[in-house]
Amino acid sequence: MGVGLIGGSIALGLRERGLAEEVVGVVRSAESAARLNKLGLVDEVTTDHAAAFAGAEVIVVTTPVGAIVEEVNRALEHAPETVVVTDGGSTKADIAAGVPSDPRFVGAHPLAGDHRSGPEAARADLLVGATTVVTPSESVEATGRVRGFWGALGSKVVEMTPARHDELIALTSHVPHVAAAAVAATTPEEALPLAATGWADTTRVAAGSPSLWREILLANRASVAGGLRGLAEEIEAYAAALDAGDGDTIQRLLETGRQRRSTTEGNRDALGS
Amino acid sequence: MGVGLIGGSIALGLRERGLAEEVVGVVRSAESAARLNKLGLVDEVTTDHAAAFAGAEVIVVTTPVGAIVEEVNRALEHAPETVVVTDGGSTKADIAAGVPSDPRFVGAHPLAGDHRSGPEAARADLLVGATTVVTPSESVEATGRVRGFWGALGSKVVEMTPARHDELIALTSHVPHVAAAAVAATTPEEALPLAATGWADTTRVAAGSPSLWREILLANRASVAGGLRGLAEEIEAYAAALDAGDGDTIQRLLETGRQRRSTTEGNRDALGS
Repeated sequence: MGVGLIGGSIALGLRERGLAEEVVGVVRSAESAARLNKLGLVDEVTTDHAAAFAGAEVIVVTTPVGAIVEEVNRALEHAPETVVVTDGGSTKADIAAGVPSDPRFVGAHPLAGDHRSGPEAARADLLVGATTVVTPSESVEATGRVRGFWGALGSKVVEMTPARHDELIALTSHVPHVAAAAVAATTPEEALPLAATGWADTTRVAAGSPSLWREILLANRASVAGGLRGLAEEIEAYAAALDAGDGDTIQRLLETGRQRRSTTEGNRDALGS
Repeated sequence: MGVGLIGGSIALGLRERGLAEEVVGVVRSAESAARLNKLGLVDEVTTDHAAAFAGAEVIVVTTPVGAIVEEVNRALEHAPETVVVTDGGSTKADIAAGVPSDPRFVGAHPLAGDHRSGPEAARADLLVGATTVVTPSESVEATGRVRGFWGALGSKVVEMTPARHDELIALTSHVPHVAAAAVAATTPEEALPLAATGWADTTRVAAGSPSLWREILLANRASVAGGLRGLAEEIEAYAAALDAGDGDTIQRLLETGRQRRSTTEGNRDALGS
């Protein structure tokens, strides 16, 4: 349900790996259906939820984040008892709060993306090597099936609660986004001719959609605000050390940053670095 | 004088573009000379400053930043009256303060780099499309010659005082470096499996040498500390808006960041983005 970059890439991956008898794309409008039919990402395109639910084994909700709760609830209400339902939302606690506790729903967040969006950007290997967080339900069987689903597409599955996911993703995604936007915003126009690759790398994600990111940040506001205050304190520690001419402290702070950065060297492919 | 990534690239660029009769590389040790002779970046390698100065028209000091003042002073003392001397240091006020006012010295900062360093990484087109800041001397003629030198290598020359350079470069290079290191350092180890391309881009420069960056930050400490406090305030504005659930303010802040980021789209090549 919802066939954009992520949903389309899942469909391609399922078909290329022979993981599904049939992949059905459920979209809202006839226009989306026509666009999707041309791309040939799925075996069948429909706007009829009931028809799609009838024989479904796995329902994957990869609509825009604001529609996920509604679509997950619709699936849980109308789909067979044997189904498992998962999603691709980038925050998890708000979705868990909006869905009645149902062992068939096992939330997920595939940490994959591209600077392009929409089904035209879909590719079969988008999830290969990427981490997917799975938030378990009370059913070990359903959780295992959903873990298997994301793992079969090539991603590395890690399991945690929705609350823990949101705390950690605040620090790896939401706080860096704000930091990038804040660095860009505090660079005056007249300084931009002096911006080189370091500035470009550090601010790259600030090019993302403000209306999309407004919703992402608000959906995880407590964890993001806490992370931002930790970041501001770290930055203030540098400023104080510079005031004092305290090179040893500056070097120690820089060493910690470099060490944390290089811990991820093993993740190079997934990080696209 | 000093043939690393920048000096070596200048030498290659001069020779490939036929801009100099002879390019002489001046290094400190016989070991450096032997290493450099193998690479063939310059027409001649020497450890004998006096010999190199004798027929020089342009002397370019691209030693490590801590040695620039000493080498510029040596060149001004011993080189012919008709010479111009320029440098490649990434801060300018401290170098200007260490060199007696001499119309023949026109400082510069070529905003070019690579994640690799050393003469082995040199390439003839390193400066092509990059901005070079030139800090004028009281001699219009010498300033014009130095502007012409950097421009002939393919860089876009902008002119400003050493103090203004240091203020602006704090915001485009030094503050982003600290921001990247601070984001990396405040990401706990256990969150790293959730780090994706956004985190990788934002923290990329934090992989740089802490001992090198300690010196760069200290050499420009007042401007960097001021810039960092502006950044911390901007980040705190996000945190306060999140506390208040104020989506409009968040969107306005994000819009400013995106707008500043996209102003540089015309610089894409130079920014490597």
